[in-house]
Amino acid sequence: MNAGSDIALNTVWVVLAAAMVLFMEGGFSLLEAGFVRTKNAVNVTMKIFVDLTIGVLAFFLVGFGVMFGKDFSGIISFNFWGASQTLHIDLNLPLSAYVLFQIGFAIATISIISGAVAERMSFKAYILIAFFVAAILYPISGHWVWNPEGWLAQLGMKDFAGSAAIHALGGSAAFAFAKVLGPRRGRFNTDGSVNVFAPSNIPLASAGTFILWFGWFGFNAGSTLNAADVNLSLIALNTMLAAAAGGTSAMIYTMFRYGKADPSMTMNGALAGLVAITAGCAFVTPYSSILIGLVAGVLVIWGTLAIDRLQVDDPVGAVAVHGINGSFGALAVGLLDQKAGLLTTGHFHLLGVQLLGVIAVVFWGYSLSYGAAKLIQATVGLRVKDDEEEEGLDMAMHGIPAYNELERFSDQPVSDQALYLRTGSED
Amino acid sequence: MNAGSDIALNTVWVVLAAAMVLFMEGGFSLLEAGFVRTKNAVNVTMKIFVDLTIGVLAFFLVGFGVMFGKDFSGIISFNFWGASQTLHIDLNLPLSAYVLFQIGFAIATISIISGAVAERMSFKAYILIAFFVAAILYPISGHWVWNPEGWLAQLGMKDFAGSAAIHALGGSAAFAFAKVLGPRRGRFNTDGSVNVFAPSNIPLASAGTFILWFGWFGFNAGSTLNAADVNLSLIALNTMLAAAAGGTSAMIYTMFRYGKADPSMTMNGALAGLVAITAGCAFVTPYSSILIGLVAGVLVIWGTLAIDRLQVDDPVGAVAVHGINGSFGALAVGLLDQKAGLLTTGHFHLLGVQLLGVIAVVFWGYSLSYGAAKLIQATVGLRVKDDEEEEGLDMAMHGIPAYNELERFSDQPVSDQALYLRTGSED
Amino acid sequence: MNAGSDIALNTVWVVLAAAMVLFMEGGFSLLEAGFVRTKNAVNVTMKIFVDLTIGVLAFFLVGFGVMFGKDFSGIISFNFWGASQTLHIDLNLPLSAYVLFQIGFAIATISIISGAVAERMSFKAYILIAFFVAAILYPISGHWVWNPEGWLAQLGMKDFAGSAAIHALGGSAAFAFAKVLGPRRGRFNTDGSVNVFAPSNIPLASAGTFILWFGWFGFNAGSTLNAADVNLSLIALNTMLAAAAGGTSAMIYTMFRYGKADPSMTMNGALAGLVAITAGCAFVTPYSSILIGLVAGVLVIWGTLAIDRLQVDDPVGAVAVHGINGSFGALAVGLLDQKAGLLTTGHFHLLGVQLLGVIAVVFWGYSLSYGAAKLIQATVGLRVKDDEEEEGLDMAMHGIPAYNELERFSDQPVSDQALYLRTGSED
Repeated sequence: MNAGSDIALNTVWVVLAAAMVLFMEGGFSLLEAGFVRTKNAVNVTMKIFVDLTIGVLAFFLVGFGVMFGKDFSGIISFNFWGASQTLHIDLNLPLSAYVLFQIGFAIATISIISGAVAERMSFKAYILIAFFVAAILYPISGHWVWNPEGWLAQLGMKDFAGSAAIHALGGSAAFAFAKVLGPRRGRFNTDGSVNVFAPSNIPLASAGTFILWFGWFGFNAGSTLNAADVNLSLIALNTMLAAAAGGTSAMIYTMFRYGKADPSMTMNGALAGLVAITAGCAFVTPYSSILIGLVAGVLVIWGTLAIDRLQVDDPVGAVAVHGINGSFGALAVGLLDQKAGLLTTGHFHLLGVQLLGVIAVVFWGYSLSYGAAKLIQATVGLRVKDDEEEEGLDMAMHGIPAYNELERFSDQPVSDQALYLRTGSED
Repeated sequence: MNAGSDIALNTVWVVLAAAMVLFMEGGFSLLEAGFVRTKNAVNVTMKIFVDLTIGVLAFFLVGFGVMFGKDFSGIISFNFWGASQTLHIDLNLPLSAYVLFQIGFAIATISIISGAVAERMSFKAYILIAFFVAAILYPISGHWVWNPEGWLAQLGMKDFAGSAAIHALGGSAAFAFAKVLGPRRGRFNTDGSVNVFAPSNIPLASAGTFILWFGWFGFNAGSTLNAADVNLSLIALNTMLAAAAGGTSAMIYTMFRYGKADPSMTMNGALAGLVAITAGCAFVTPYSSILIGLVAGVLVIWGTLAIDRLQVDDPVGAVAVHGINGSFGALAVGLLDQKAGLLTTGHFHLLGVQLLGVIAVVFWGYSLSYGAAKLIQATVGLRVKDDEEEEGLDMAMHGIPAYNELERFSDQPVSDQALYLRTGSED
Repeated sequence: MNAGSDIALNTVWVVLAAAMVLFMEGGFSLLEAGFVRTKNAVNVTMKIFVDLTIGVLAFFLVGFGVMFGKDFSGIISFNFWGASQTLHIDLNLPLSAYVLFQIGFAIATISIISGAVAERMSFKAYILIAFFVAAILYPISGHWVWNPEGWLAQLGMKDFAGSAAIHALGGSAAFAFAKVLGPRRGRFNTDGSVNVFAPSNIPLASAGTFILWFGWFGFNAGSTLNAADVNLSLIALNTMLAAAAGGTSAMIYTMFRYGKADPSMTMNGALAGLVAITAGCAFVTPYSSILIGLVAGVLVIWGTLAIDRLQVDDPVGAVAVHGINGSFGALAVGLLDQKAGLLTTGHFHLLGVQLLGVIAVVFWGYSLSYGAAKLIQATVGLRVKDDEEEEGLDMAMHGIPAYNELERFSDQPVSDQALYLRTGSED
């Protein structure tokens, strides 16, 4: 049996876009594994696998229904069993395509958090958090913004692919978890100054950035959910221009301000441009996209320094990239939207709605996550032991180092702990 | 000249899916290079390049015609010159698109084997094996399953994207080659216990896993060959859910059974879920897909331990991932197919056909490969010399180490052997 | 508002192809970071980010208009403000899709150069060069070949996806810059012999190769700009076959000539096949594609040795891969084009046009770049200081090493320079 040709094209488009969005998990993983210290690179990788496994199932079984089921007061849905429910939005594509695409969005939100809590969070705590974000935190505020009957959607908030619904939410949750969790050992001195832990593997981090950048075309342009959307290619172009501009301003800024073009800031600058254009990619011009990107690339640097000053430890800069630039991106729609932006039309209304939406989403993300963090801290525990942190989470929690170089010239195994699974003596 | 719009869409769809499937070779390569010891990482990479070069040409020139040419008795075709022949199946897309897609499938089958024979097989032997698999082994059993006139196809076997035709076949061939080849030096002790060789580079292996996962959307959903297939997005969703479930059960199992969430088992668990859903992705529900994935994630662990106990050395777990879970996936269709599964409809017939198909494919894959291995062993040799194995295949066969760190702080070359090609003195 | 279904499909096709082409930047980056010495791996990565940031903006704002604006005498356009201008070619897709796709092409041209100048060029000089290539060098010769009113287009030159317009141009510019820049310290001895600097990270380089290979399907098949092009899938198949053949001949050649299958030559052989088929993928048969690839794989080895003999230092082999094989690929169309090739039809005319085109493009690329290099050398300087080269450009220019392993077992930062950005004391 064949689908109609419109639906066929939309299905292919959304499935490919979804595959690209899901591939972004690889981007998060490599970026974070490259930015953290070597002794914790396996652990951040495993956290992304938590997103890709438990996070996926939690959103499929619970979160999707909460987000897109029958609305209750603009706040929530109680249709818990996800994709088996009748969907309360109109789509010109199969429900399964939409569910798959939304799964990619949900787990991106979790992955934002994984970076901020790297190098010291307990693995079990992270599993609980992944479930919490996929099943509760993201679907509820997502319901507000993207369920057609959600209260922010009803007010006219414009957040095309989720600068607010995904990135500002993920970034504010990341801030809450990082704050309750506390900084890595030795990160801050008693006088408030910061000790730098250099990234362990820059080429690996760059690979992550390239994958994220690639996937973002699916993330933003795929959010049309409709191949015939006349803005589809404009969205993709705006996405590219904002990323290029974000990388440009971050790179140039660090060259002039610090004398050296900084790799991690350049990468985060490009990502900040991508985050910031996510809300407005369908609503602003290419020139506005460049402007948004240029601002984002500097904002991510200032934001990173500000978070350091607050003595909150975010090893990969997730709060600055996603939280601050997600908020900025949603507000930028209020300024630069071609039909209703303040700077383009002189009207304040949309900017007001966007501001309200950002405040609501950030407050929700921060406060609920703060509560969840405290609850987990008081029960199963949020943080690894000091000696585990010192040893590194890779050996402590997964029994294996990221890079096993001592074995290079030997046939003898170096680790009695590693891969215990496959030793005959275990059975 | 323009194609009709149906064909245009199908062509774009299949070409993009084929590109994703071919990109999976990068996934195999990085996964294997990350799982083996550093001293053999270049060699496994080069084996994937054998698949991508000689394997591609062998399948294009010979294998494709054997598989899809005019049928002879349901067993084989003798139309050797591949794509130049009239194709004996109906397609609503250009032959070149179909050939490209099938090339991706053929070389995936070879790549499954490359992991199991890693770290000790002679490079020349591997070249012969790549030709053997692409031109003979895979096309003949593929003919049985996927040529409309093949005997298993005629019986009604359902193997949508090849849990049996690709993965069970590749896995059983891998088992035969690994068995004849013998274990790596020092792998098994005289009392039968296993020595562990820890993976050399977990982030690299994770990158491979992410690429394989991404490519699998092309592998499974692309097998529709038809953009208007109403199941296209369901296939993609089922693929995602089974992978998530496979990673979940492997991760949780290792946490509870061994106290540590094991990275290589989690990755292999997700891959096992992907392998197992490959046959049934178009025929089962999302909930069945989750079930199949959950079973696959545990089966891959038990399978790995069982193969260790048989004293067969499979450095990356290819037999457990592809052979065991490919077989399981094909059988699972017999259990869970919505129209004819035993558990869903109470009918035994399909399960019987699937069981017969799996037995036929596994027997074919194992026995012919066993014979080929013995033949190569008796002629050009199957295994490197002991001192080459000790030194590592990278230096012995390719004259270059995977990671060249000693040169980091020096302008002087460290290796007189390396890159001999570009030294003036050689000419 | 919905686009017509033809345009919708074309838009989706070109946007996805563009995303794949832009992802190739990641391929260039990882390939180059793997091929250079560890101490310069961050710096080559950062150069690709220059392409992806400043290069993108320069082409969008200036280059696109120069290339595709209203023609002036077949040589150039002065419509400087890029995408805001009316486009002077016919397209059945939105302008923004075309601009995005062309951005990918422009920055690929710059990235070709980045490899040849690796390990000793000043970062500021590279920024100027990226602007020069994106705004002037590539758009003008691109105008000749691809603007319908360009003088080479008017003569009937056939360069489907740019063996000449992109690869031969980039390669000849790379040669000029590498020549003026001079070799790396210690590269050549006074007797003319060559010292080998072994690649630092082969698995990383392989990852780059796999990404480039994947992206090339977008590069070549996407150049149809039309999903209904009946040759679309043939183009993709030819692309695959030429790459496979290029890798095959390079691998086999090094095995027989030097006794070892060389990884970097095998990768460059596959890339050479891709470069060489880029002009003719839409015009030749699959068998011709294999022939072109087989030649390319040997040509890249001979070319590399020849460039060494000229005492020009090209750390990654960019001139041999892109310059020599781009030229060869454009000429091969003159030999093997199905409608007008010398070997296929006996007519000399097309070969003459192709030869003229290659000479024009290579002369333009070499001479203008030579002048630009001399100008930059005389003003801001082209090369880093000796002690910076000795230390490595990563620490000298970016304050951070590629791999930070000393920190693996310590909570103490190793580098006071690294990530200065995030130290509290800086503010």
